[in-house]
Amino acid sequence: MSDPFFQPVSGFDLPRYAGVPTFMRLPHVPLEDERLGQVDVGLIGVPWDSGTTNRPGPRHGPRQLRDMSTMMRAENGATGIRPFEAMNCADLGDVPPNPADIQESMARITAFYNRVLAAGIRPLTAGGDHLTSLPVLRALAAKEPLGMVHFDSHTDLFHSYFGGTMYTHGTPFRRAVEERLLDPKRVVQIGIRGTTYDREDRDFADSVGIRVIPIEEFHARGVEDVMAEAREIVGTAPTYVSYDIDFVDPAFAPGTGTPEIGGPNSFQALQVVRSLKGCNIVGADLVEVSPPFDASGGTAYLGATLLFELLCVMAG
Amino acid sequence: MSDPFFQPVSGFDLPRYAGVPTFMRLPHVPLEDERLGQVDVGLIGVPWDSGTTNRPGPRHGPRQLRDMSTMMRAENGATGIRPFEAMNCADLGDVPPNPADIQESMARITAFYNRVLAAGIRPLTAGGDHLTSLPVLRALAAKEPLGMVHFDSHTDLFHSYFGGTMYTHGTPFRRAVEERLLDPKRVVQIGIRGTTYDREDRDFADSVGIRVIPIEEFHARGVEDVMAEAREIVGTAPTYVSYDIDFVDPAFAPGTGTPEIGGPNSFQALQVVRSLKGCNIVGADLVEVSPPFDASGGTAYLGATLLFELLCVMAG
Amino acid sequence: MSDPFFQPVSGFDLPRYAGVPTFMRLPHVPLEDERLGQVDVGLIGVPWDSGTTNRPGPRHGPRQLRDMSTMMRAENGATGIRPFEAMNCADLGDVPPNPADIQESMARITAFYNRVLAAGIRPLTAGGDHLTSLPVLRALAAKEPLGMVHFDSHTDLFHSYFGGTMYTHGTPFRRAVEERLLDPKRVVQIGIRGTTYDREDRDFADSVGIRVIPIEEFHARGVEDVMAEAREIVGTAPTYVSYDIDFVDPAFAPGTGTPEIGGPNSFQALQVVRSLKGCNIVGADLVEVSPPFDASGGTAYLGATLLFELLCVMAG
Amino acid sequence: MSDPFFQPVSGFDLPRYAGVPTFMRLPHVPLEDERLGQVDVGLIGVPWDSGTTNRPGPRHGPRQLRDMSTMMRAENGATGIRPFEAMNCADLGDVPPNPADIQESMARITAFYNRVLAAGIRPLTAGGDHLTSLPVLRALAAKEPLGMVHFDSHTDLFHSYFGGTMYTHGTPFRRAVEERLLDPKRVVQIGIRGTTYDREDRDFADSVGIRVIPIEEFHARGVEDVMAEAREIVGTAPTYVSYDIDFVDPAFAPGTGTPEIGGPNSFQALQVVRSLKGCNIVGADLVEVSPPFDASGGTAYLGATLLFELLCVMAG
Amino acid sequence: MSDPFFQPVSGFDLPRYAGVPTFMRLPHVPLEDERLGQVDVGLIGVPWDSGTTNRPGPRHGPRQLRDMSTMMRAENGATGIRPFEAMNCADLGDVPPNPADIQESMARITAFYNRVLAAGIRPLTAGGDHLTSLPVLRALAAKEPLGMVHFDSHTDLFHSYFGGTMYTHGTPFRRAVEERLLDPKRVVQIGIRGTTYDREDRDFADSVGIRVIPIEEFHARGVEDVMAEAREIVGTAPTYVSYDIDFVDPAFAPGTGTPEIGGPNSFQALQVVRSLKGCNIVGADLVEVSPPFDASGGTAYLGATLLFELLCVMAG
Amino acid sequence: MSDPFFQPVSGFDLPRYAGVPTFMRLPHVPLEDERLGQVDVGLIGVPWDSGTTNRPGPRHGPRQLRDMSTMMRAENGATGIRPFEAMNCADLGDVPPNPADIQESMARITAFYNRVLAAGIRPLTAGGDHLTSLPVLRALAAKEPLGMVHFDSHTDLFHSYFGGTMYTHGTPFRRAVEERLLDPKRVVQIGIRGTTYDREDRDFADSVGIRVIPIEEFHARGVEDVMAEAREIVGTAPTYVSYDIDFVDPAFAPGTGTPEIGGPNSFQALQVVRSLKGCNIVGADLVEVSPPFDASGGTAYLGATLLFELLCVMAG
Repeated sequence: MSDPFFQPVSGFDLPRYAGVPTFMRLPHVPLEDERLGQVDVGLIGVPWDSGTTNRPGPRHGPRQLRDMSTMMRAENGATGIRPFEAMNCADLGDVPPNPADIQESMARITAFYNRVLAAGIRPLTAGGDHLTSLPVLRALAAKEPLGMVHFDSHTDLFHSYFGGTMYTHGTPFRRAVEERLLDPKRVVQIGIRGTTYDREDRDFADSVGIRVIPIEEFHARGVEDVMAEAREIVGTAPTYVSYDIDFVDPAFAPGTGTPEIGGPNSFQALQVVRSLKGCNIVGADLVEVSPPFDASGGTAYLGATLLFELLCVMAG
Repeated sequence: MSDPFFQPVSGFDLPRYAGVPTFMRLPHVPLEDERLGQVDVGLIGVPWDSGTTNRPGPRHGPRQLRDMSTMMRAENGATGIRPFEAMNCADLGDVPPNPADIQESMARITAFYNRVLAAGIRPLTAGGDHLTSLPVLRALAAKEPLGMVHFDSHTDLFHSYFGGTMYTHGTPFRRAVEERLLDPKRVVQIGIRGTTYDREDRDFADSVGIRVIPIEEFHARGVEDVMAEAREIVGTAPTYVSYDIDFVDPAFAPGTGTPEIGGPNSFQALQVVRSLKGCNIVGADLVEVSPPFDASGGTAYLGATLLFELLCVMAG
Repeated sequence: MSDPFFQPVSGFDLPRYAGVPTFMRLPHVPLEDERLGQVDVGLIGVPWDSGTTNRPGPRHGPRQLRDMSTMMRAENGATGIRPFEAMNCADLGDVPPNPADIQESMARITAFYNRVLAAGIRPLTAGGDHLTSLPVLRALAAKEPLGMVHFDSHTDLFHSYFGGTMYTHGTPFRRAVEERLLDPKRVVQIGIRGTTYDREDRDFADSVGIRVIPIEEFHARGVEDVMAEAREIVGTAPTYVSYDIDFVDPAFAPGTGTPEIGGPNSFQALQVVRSLKGCNIVGADLVEVSPPFDASGGTAYLGATLLFELLCVMAG
Repeated sequence: MSDPFFQPVSGFDLPRYAGVPTFMRLPHVPLEDERLGQVDVGLIGVPWDSGTTNRPGPRHGPRQLRDMSTMMRAENGATGIRPFEAMNCADLGDVPPNPADIQESMARITAFYNRVLAAGIRPLTAGGDHLTSLPVLRALAAKEPLGMVHFDSHTDLFHSYFGGTMYTHGTPFRRAVEERLLDPKRVVQIGIRGTTYDREDRDFADSVGIRVIPIEEFHARGVEDVMAEAREIVGTAPTYVSYDIDFVDPAFAPGTGTPEIGGPNSFQALQVVRSLKGCNIVGADLVEVSPPFDASGGTAYLGATLLFELLCVMAG
Repeated sequence: MSDPFFQPVSGFDLPRYAGVPTFMRLPHVPLEDERLGQVDVGLIGVPWDSGTTNRPGPRHGPRQLRDMSTMMRAENGATGIRPFEAMNCADLGDVPPNPADIQESMARITAFYNRVLAAGIRPLTAGGDHLTSLPVLRALAAKEPLGMVHFDSHTDLFHSYFGGTMYTHGTPFRRAVEERLLDPKRVVQIGIRGTTYDREDRDFADSVGIRVIPIEEFHARGVEDVMAEAREIVGTAPTYVSYDIDFVDPAFAPGTGTPEIGGPNSFQALQVVRSLKGCNIVGADLVEVSPPFDASGGTAYLGATLLFELLCVMAG
Repeated sequence: MSDPFFQPVSGFDLPRYAGVPTFMRLPHVPLEDERLGQVDVGLIGVPWDSGTTNRPGPRHGPRQLRDMSTMMRAENGATGIRPFEAMNCADLGDVPPNPADIQESMARITAFYNRVLAAGIRPLTAGGDHLTSLPVLRALAAKEPLGMVHFDSHTDLFHSYFGGTMYTHGTPFRRAVEERLLDPKRVVQIGIRGTTYDREDRDFADSVGIRVIPIEEFHARGVEDVMAEAREIVGTAPTYVSYDIDFVDPAFAPGTGTPEIGGPNSFQALQVVRSLKGCNIVGADLVEVSPPFDASGGTAYLGATLLFELLCVMAG
């Protein structure tokens, strides 16, 4: 078992609704903490939504995800994995964004992750809107482009918005490919759907070799078949996992800014993460949870469960 | 491409949460507007729920559907159809009902649709409760009975309520058959379920030849098989499509007055519309969206997406 | 047909949102009523949640279930059963709990059910948290252990909580087996999932012969196959049915204290009850509906529908 | 003390959230019950909103008012009155409206109240929209016109709506004056405010001698002074009290269809009822509570408290 | 009376919940419309919240304010003013912001208002966060500094945030004074309260001569006295009115990002506007309405009423 | 200034919606932390509601109060007090209750507070239901009875509930007087109102000399006069302050289990705390915040502001 310091508080000792809510009830280990070097996987909040072009709110995501994550227990009932024993996990706190300055916020995020990586920690991020992934990748992929499994209803591959604005939550992976942070041949996007303005994003994907699996194909083939292809695409080289909560159908995840009808159900939402077993995951994120649009808190509870599943597959 | 005047405002020019909310961000073309004659398909609101025998609210449907419909973009991601280029579409405004007089309201609705039809416009209606369909059909089927594909959890074929009241949201299609607005042999009702008082509606359906596909059969056979039969029933003659939002399971569409447990999911909700491709659709409606029972707005968002899908299949 | 006294008020006589809300709009027959002896099946509320270790609220369940149950009509649309004609059904009111004394509350519940059983009535219980089942079983299984079909995302087989507390909503069936109220070889638990602290509950199940069907197996095999096994396990001897609303996925049943992601949908939720046809059901409960966590009332509506389905299968 | 049969259930015997919710936890005495003749004051629900010209929902009022009224205890803390000991009070159930027929509904209401009055019972009504008052007054004032203290933000004295519709929730007291059910010289309307189309209602009030006290005057003079005048206007002759919940500011009573900003606070809302002490109250109503627009249930809780205060002043 | 074209739709012709929701049901007159030159007062939406440093959402303000403003009728019940007859009013639509670029958005806003002013229109703005006021003032005060009556719980006079960010919703009036858009000696801020980091804003106010009236003084002196002073401060020279909805207590206006406890009630909220009678108002705004934090819509309804009151006082 | 370690995180460094939410963004100092001895005032959560006889939920209070308390800044705008500079303040975490065992929970609470007091820390408690005050007083008043200023709508002086249950949230101060933890002659209860079963509590108050100020007297005399009397009653001897959020009117504080209509507004809610200046406060609590009944979070925000005011007056 890992260091007892890194074990989450048990609900048998303190009821799960009690206590200061850190991610998964893990110890809070700020970057300047002497324990930092012992952390294997760090959960990090990025409370930021300045890249949102539609309904805002993901800046409130990390806090509600922390709250709901206190419902998680020690063991994955489906896979038997006990991530907190397999690895030293900790809550590293939130990156401080500047909500009124996108470029500065991105710089702060990349700098934070550079320190995390320097300490030998694999990051698991709770966003924030999807632009969050870009400054994270700038740290993670500084040395070589990564593969990526991307769950989403949108490709986020657009060139620009509003007549030339290049940094929004609809453009992070276009930038990431341009900046050679991602190896497009090792990128797969799953669950794409909804109305579009045009096919500019899809044309770009085709031109660089990104594999896009629309939701119709997902439903027709099923989780197992689709995920087998996904694993083949990313192979065993270093891979990032980016999970936009709007991948899941809005009945299961209403709390998000740009939902699209017709997505996977909650069981499939879990299955796709479990299917990543064996991938070489160097980092992951769960983004676009928007508490103001989530009257019941159910979206954040699903999100917290997905963070737990991501943690388990990072431990597997 | 159709007339630029009829193109919706793009979210790249004005964010989708901005602007006066017309249906799909289309131009508002009142009946007295000189542009009326150029409209191919008119979206019309019927803010009316006087036929509701249970929980009220659909009078607020058109406004919330307009609001949520501003999330729709130009192209159907699944089918590739770009309806606003294929046809001149416009928001024709709302029919003014008299909430305290059912007969007068029905007369006003029929009169409004007569003007719409006289201008050569195919109507796509946002209700309103399901009684709305009757005065619409009185205009549309004035010359000959129509076929109908009807998605619902109820048949709406009852004779009367409360000791003889003949005009409620549970009776429109009984009246429509009696008034020879519908050809019962060309009517199919899909998704019927829930508890009932008796089988009077089903006996009537059987007696006139309406095909009722209960939800158990729907789930057992699947969308593709069921919809192939539906297309065969209505054939290529003029057909009306009536979509009650309570066809969809209440987890996906809580905002409605008389939900019934166990319905289709949101992907199936879209698929059934797409499966109407090739039908001769002379008009369609989406009814029973009740914002007061829809805390999150998700029902109206599903409803707006269904209106978009109906528009696409009318363009197809 | 059964006694007219026991027929529910029809929505054609009094709209379903009207009137004093008893369960299913049945007559209220308190234990001291002279009509008690004529009742076949009694619906009983247990407004109690002192056994809850997590988020509270099921004490409010019976009232909201009564409210929503007024939406039920006379006939099961899927099975054709008309339970109120097949049996004399009545609302027996609520057991008065003492919210500040668990042991006294359990004694009161058992005493109440002893009177119900003495009158020859089969009880259908609306909880309350899952600890409710224990004092009910103490009455029902006083003479011989029962079989049980248990729908839930948790086994509720734990030994104790918080350092030795033996009576919580996580322990009722451990106690019931220990007290020989259940025959573990005739117990099946369906839908188990979510994170766990350890496998102490599962080890106990294995050690006494309780069959646990986790959700992964449920989804893989399907309702029909799983329920055939369930029927075989309980056989034709007296059987209790315990239905925790958190068996159903939280998108369909958000109003509960300890939801777990990835459960059955609402159609499956109904199917599993219908599949109990032919079982020898001596009592049933529907527990853990928590209105404070159910913004829209949808969970109670699902719960009321499940109570109706349970009633139908008890009549079948 | 009055008959023990008529005492409400105590929260010390059964917690207040438990049990079948009748008004104030009083016995349910339908009109055909043999106890009817012993009732002094009858609480009656009128679940009806067909007169609503704006946002609907008061048809759900009686049920939620029953639910919240179970929070009321035995004694008025401010005045010391114990109404259930002073008078035999009972829940007489709901009048069955026909939601799709206004005239028939009004006839049913008047008929119901005629039976109530024939049994010597003073009615306290839980609406329903404000049109409810008209058919109630047709029974109560059958022999002679009544005085009225009317709390509201609207006069409800308009001639007609929508081009001639004479029976809506904006016209009841115009009709009541025309039908000589009210003696306009003994009518006072308190709290009037908000925007208006014109002054047609105020001109009518002036022409017949109704005293209108707008909210500005109410705030300037204070409760005591205003209510002294109100008592003087109605004198000691038979008087009706009609309390529209939208009299109270919408922060205190959001759950209503046509709120107007700037009303009294909740303490003033209670004070005005207590100030009616000494009036000769032959009946009273509390109307326009609309649960679908009341996310928290607070409006119905205020409404239930007002019903209790009205009961106390009827007992005083 | 003004031009019939500029009369709002009457609720007697079309119920107030019906129709395309423009501000106050006025005609939508875009800047390129030929009618623009006939408009006296233009209602303009600024759906923008990029200056928000705390909880987001005001970008959704204009749409919900339009929706709720359809509840306004023709005449101010308190003052008798009929603004739509006194002036030609119109909905000029929304300024298109770029949610991901603050500077560009401010430039777009100023440009829009320059066109409005060039057409001789006085603007009444529905925000948007409070940074909105700055680019509006850049147009309005291009020629000479204005006086300002400012209702708020914050001074919005801070120098900068987050280590130097100078354009946020906490800084607009610091910038406006620096840019000589406001004459500080003619500025009064009313309702200031809540916790603070330091007194840097108040020191600045003191140094330039801005009069700050904290809420304690407001409550102690009363509306009449405070507003007399306010009128004296701004005098008869051109004056801007800026109304932050968080001026009002959060029980009355929960839907805002940075509420502060202990503010005025809703009647006072209206009174302060009415007290501006006689001022020389060249423009006004109502900002910080945040629908995502307003479960019931009550904040926007209050906001719409305040817009109507502002319109009345601009007409007076 | 106090130790920099004890300064809360500034919103200028990290936006207030970000970061792990401790009370007031103070450092989390568990009892075993070496810094404990340096703490002057400790904020402690008691997530417990087993004493609730009505609607549950206060067990969730501490977490939501922590969340909302991150909105507090450094200085009290009204009084100028900067509590975090005047005293070393810290979040001491939550007492671990056993939700299924009242006596054990009380023992745990008292033990926790004994350790806090032993470290020389004054406690400021965030409940929890009102029974919380009893085990806290058992620690605080171990040596001598305390005086108490008690804000509430209920006296909480009842002897027992449900036929003899002596420990509920309606009995703590009866027990505290019996156990000589309170000196009844130095106890004042302010704001008492609502319906009652009988006057048993008031008779007890009278018999032991507790001063009860009902809400009618509070409104008539005003805050200043009432609080002058309160200060006189408690004098300068050690005094406890117990603040039940239901003291405040439910429009301002809907999130509580047993609201009573007609209470103080939010400004008065703050004033009464500020009026305690000069009292010898040895501890304080804020109880009965129930998040499940608080759709908007506004109650917890008011509660957090009251905790801040209590902190300021403890520092004053």
